[in-house]
Amino acid sequence: MASQILVIVSLLAISCSLAAAGIEPGPLQDFCVADPASSACRDPKLVKPDNFFSGGFNVPGNTSNPSGSSVTSASVAQIPGLNTLGLTLIRFDFAHGGLVTLHIHPRASEILTVLEGSLLVGFVSSSPENRLFSKVLEQGDVFVFPIGLAHFLSNVGNGTAAAIASLNSQNPGFIAIPSNIFGTSPPIGDDVLAKAYNVDKSIVEKLKAQFHS
Amino acid sequence: MASQILVIVSLLAISCSLAAAGIEPGPLQDFCVADPASSACRDPKLVKPDNFFSGGFNVPGNTSNPSGSSVTSASVAQIPGLNTLGLTLIRFDFAHGGLVTLHIHPRASEILTVLEGSLLVGFVSSSPENRLFSKVLEQGDVFVFPIGLAHFLSNVGNGTAAAIASLNSQNPGFIAIPSNIFGTSPPIGDDVLAKAYNVDKSIVEKLKAQFHS
Amino acid sequence: MASQILVIVSLLAISCSLAAAGIEPGPLQDFCVADPASSACRDPKLVKPDNFFSGGFNVPGNTSNPSGSSVTSASVAQIPGLNTLGLTLIRFDFAHGGLVTLHIHPRASEILTVLEGSLLVGFVSSSPENRLFSKVLEQGDVFVFPIGLAHFLSNVGNGTAAAIASLNSQNPGFIAIPSNIFGTSPPIGDDVLAKAYNVDKSIVEKLKAQFHS
Amino acid sequence: MASQILVIVSLLAISCSLAAAGIEPGPLQDFCVADPASSACRDPKLVKPDNFFSGGFNVPGNTSNPSGSSVTSASVAQIPGLNTLGLTLIRFDFAHGGLVTLHIHPRASEILTVLEGSLLVGFVSSSPENRLFSKVLEQGDVFVFPIGLAHFLSNVGNGTAAAIASLNSQNPGFIAIPSNIFGTSPPIGDDVLAKAYNVDKSIVEKLKAQFHS
Amino acid sequence: MASQILVIVSLLAISCSLAAAGIEPGPLQDFCVADPASSACRDPKLVKPDNFFSGGFNVPGNTSNPSGSSVTSASVAQIPGLNTLGLTLIRFDFAHGGLVTLHIHPRASEILTVLEGSLLVGFVSSSPENRLFSKVLEQGDVFVFPIGLAHFLSNVGNGTAAAIASLNSQNPGFIAIPSNIFGTSPPIGDDVLAKAYNVDKSIVEKLKAQFHS
Amino acid sequence: MASQILVIVSLLAISCSLAAAGIEPGPLQDFCVADPASSACRDPKLVKPDNFFSGGFNVPGNTSNPSGSSVTSASVAQIPGLNTLGLTLIRFDFAHGGLVTLHIHPRASEILTVLEGSLLVGFVSSSPENRLFSKVLEQGDVFVFPIGLAHFLSNVGNGTAAAIASLNSQNPGFIAIPSNIFGTSPPIGDDVLAKAYNVDKSIVEKLKAQFHS
Repeated sequence: MASQILVIVSLLAISCSLAAAGIEPGPLQDFCVADPASSACRDPKLVKPDNFFSGGFNVPGNTSNPSGSSVTSASVAQIPGLNTLGLTLIRFDFAHGGLVTLHIHPRASEILTVLEGSLLVGFVSSSPENRLFSKVLEQGDVFVFPIGLAHFLSNVGNGTAAAIASLNSQNPGFIAIPSNIFGTSPPIGDDVLAKAYNVDKSIVEKLKAQFHS
Repeated sequence: MASQILVIVSLLAISCSLAAAGIEPGPLQDFCVADPASSACRDPKLVKPDNFFSGGFNVPGNTSNPSGSSVTSASVAQIPGLNTLGLTLIRFDFAHGGLVTLHIHPRASEILTVLEGSLLVGFVSSSPENRLFSKVLEQGDVFVFPIGLAHFLSNVGNGTAAAIASLNSQNPGFIAIPSNIFGTSPPIGDDVLAKAYNVDKSIVEKLKAQFHS
Repeated sequence: MASQILVIVSLLAISCSLAAAGIEPGPLQDFCVADPASSACRDPKLVKPDNFFSGGFNVPGNTSNPSGSSVTSASVAQIPGLNTLGLTLIRFDFAHGGLVTLHIHPRASEILTVLEGSLLVGFVSSSPENRLFSKVLEQGDVFVFPIGLAHFLSNVGNGTAAAIASLNSQNPGFIAIPSNIFGTSPPIGDDVLAKAYNVDKSIVEKLKAQFHS
Repeated sequence: MASQILVIVSLLAISCSLAAAGIEPGPLQDFCVADPASSACRDPKLVKPDNFFSGGFNVPGNTSNPSGSSVTSASVAQIPGLNTLGLTLIRFDFAHGGLVTLHIHPRASEILTVLEGSLLVGFVSSSPENRLFSKVLEQGDVFVFPIGLAHFLSNVGNGTAAAIASLNSQNPGFIAIPSNIFGTSPPIGDDVLAKAYNVDKSIVEKLKAQFHS
Repeated sequence: MASQILVIVSLLAISCSLAAAGIEPGPLQDFCVADPASSACRDPKLVKPDNFFSGGFNVPGNTSNPSGSSVTSASVAQIPGLNTLGLTLIRFDFAHGGLVTLHIHPRASEILTVLEGSLLVGFVSSSPENRLFSKVLEQGDVFVFPIGLAHFLSNVGNGTAAAIASLNSQNPGFIAIPSNIFGTSPPIGDDVLAKAYNVDKSIVEKLKAQFHS
Repeated sequence: MASQILVIVSLLAISCSLAAAGIEPGPLQDFCVADPASSACRDPKLVKPDNFFSGGFNVPGNTSNPSGSSVTSASVAQIPGLNTLGLTLIRFDFAHGGLVTLHIHPRASEILTVLEGSLLVGFVSSSPENRLFSKVLEQGDVFVFPIGLAHFLSNVGNGTAAAIASLNSQNPGFIAIPSNIFGTSPPIGDDVLAKAYNVDKSIVEKLKAQFHS
């Protein structure tokens, strides 16, 4: 009975959420394994090697979708030991002609290694204004996407392609630019979009139609 | 002529005094006034009150342009004493129907106060995915745009409008989304854009035409 | 009655959501709206545009007090969406001759814009030792107070004055120097103060009398 | 009995109030005193001077142990007011010939002052590779150990010795290198250790025997 | 003569090596010893143990001055190896009745250990507003002053006193509150000070007279 | 002539070293490409896609050495665009029985993906004290090594093995524990090592002999 009360007290005491911190965590201890039963670190004495492990990164993702690409993540959701350590791992797979659309990670830079195939990659700077930095990468090539800049990956080879990437945040964020503008809920008004893109509202409506159902 | 060269030199030097650090500076001393003659702090004994000063923020900017809006900055380029202090000030002016286009600040959050007029503002989150948070603001209203998220400001009133905003970085960055995608140099290929926006290349070319000359 | 209790509860809860972190937060997610019901972020799916909004910044504060000045804040207490975003907004109003006393923000720099009137402002550095940087500002003038340095604002015009300021912390702190020394509870001993200011205890007691009741 | 349970509860709660944040805290408020009853800051109105106090740092520790040394800490466990302030204080005592073994603080640099005796101290850099920086220190001498580097302290004088040190983290961590390799639980395999140290397994087993019981 | 010039040059160079960064440095390498010949790190291959060393912290400072106290520092100026490591060491000595005046470190918290004597110490919070936390400390007592808060140390024993303190910044800053307000150059106007302290200008002038010559 | 002077001025102006910063850089601009001709950022207008590129990560390294392993890096030395972005990429190759010895990265966490073979990996915590977290990994398995903790990788399969890893620092540091203790220059004294490892000096000398020539 007494020991159960002890457990309840300590769970209450550690009830402040990880999310409550609201910050990019750097570690204050060896590790702070995310605890499914509370929002504090798991009791370090109960932490196991498997908390730092995930499998299956050699298995291609399913690319049978309109973009012809897939993104597989190993982040804190898959590897609770990543909590506070500032890293996320991603595997990209591409069907022939597949595209990972234009997107921004607001909270991480990314380093990419091509496992197979030929990828056209690019990012756009804000200063110099709207400068495109792009390159076709082959197997074993490495490329860097700086934090906060729009980038894309396009399979320009004859077959499938695959790549692995690391990002230096446990929650890099993903803003898919086309749908973040034309597929919002509720929609951004046609007036705003027509003026922003300097086109007729008919074109705005066509673009919106691709991202709303 | 000579003074124009002087201006160029000092702008290069100031921008390098920021760039050299390569970091978002927090202060290690009372202040570190950007020094046009080097990339170090100005000798503190030579610093003057005017190094922390800029004027004219009550003067509306010129909105006679296609967007019907103007952006006036007081950042480290105008106020060298802002160096390392992590703040930038902006004044927005709007003609009737004016728009500050969809854009992202990769390195700062923003707090906005409406000085006059009616502004429709909005930002889009990445999680929840593509959720629009928008509101019509009147004089004296305050609104916040979180770091790294796309946002816009549109004059929906009957007259002109003006607002003032602060950002918590000395170099927030400005990614104008339409031109950062459709107006890059060199251009992003039509293949990539047509697939990303899921439209014909003819529409992609029409969109590009608005941002290339 | 019930709504007033609600206000008290939610202020307690918000201050916990700040205090729990115990750090100057940088965001780990798009936003972390302070949740009155806990110390974690509000469920992002329940967040609304109004969580990023506050009104009334065009309304002068009440300056009918001994200092002849008022300070109106839009911080995380008023705008829960500011949580983790590192910004606070302030409006100053001044009666004729009004003063915002000498004070220090231990956790933020400040950028000030004069809305109307004439303000004598100044800050004092620690290195160079005790150097005063001051200037009379008019409408539209902008001035910067570096983090951690003592500063003041004094209405030196013929009428009222008003200004708006931004600080790069969600909890900048406010140390009013005269009362932080002469109005503490319990009081600092006369021996210490007489030696520190190198004056008779009778003067120390006169100074203390202004800040104790 | 009851008081012992109380101690256990409050140690759990304090260690969680640190762990919950999962970060090296910089303050968001004047102070955030660790609260044994929760993982949030103690209510600031209930904080007392004693929360920032600890005594007995003039009392030598017990050095009657194989290493002939003792380490006394004043960290957040002893001084709850240290929470979020990024400091830990340590007192070292040495019997004749005593040693504080080779160790690493992964989260803090250290500045040491010799109170009495003669201490041989040293740290080893990683770049330049494996360079030893060592010196014999006497009373009043000050030495610095950079964060993350292996270091040791050895009493090389004729009598006892004592020193005081500060570390700039509230949880610096302590990796005692010999036992962190040869005394782990479960043990690191003899194959790995024999190859790493390029010696026979018999020597590995002899080394392990010193740190396992 | 030559050595004095050398000292001046190397102080200038060190202060540049700090100032250039313009930030509170955390290390990007094992160490970055301040280089008197430039503002970069000294070539790591030329770094020596003495770069991390300073002597004489057992020698009382000279307290024959009006305050009856002295402050001896071991910061990056004395120990170039402290550069980027975020630590400063201080020794306080007190004559009978000596005082270290009310002051603020804008960039560091402080942990104090009493070596001998009896010290009345105190700090004042901003929230709760103007709360004094004070205590009389004896030999071996430890006390913490949180970053950015006004504090003082007063010898209340019958003899001399001494203490040692560590601060977690390589440049904590020192704002002596009385002289930072009443001894500035140029002076803060009597109008401002009389209103701030709510006393006659004659008292303001008496206070100023203590700090101006 | 004039333009050449301009170039000289701007190079002088950006002559403050990247090393001068002495900090883990987070970006203040889109990117800050390391400039071989100075220690500031390369002029952003001269930056090219190849500055973010490196090739050959599909080529196994040479494992014909006593450890039977090789480490290939893509850090800022190979990819100047990585400067300030906080990422390093590593490829490990292993001969049959190969070992990457026990080592610590003082400035980065690491996420590892096995490309082929079977690897026994492990790290040791400091709290809980000396706990080993180890696991045998196969192709496609992912494992995390927290910052500052000792770890190793050992090929326990029947053939060769290879893995790729990312670290969240542009200069993670590498402390090979056996040689960092037994192979230092100058050597750590036998007295210290014999007492630290609790063995005869003859064993200490045997261990030293493996790492000194």
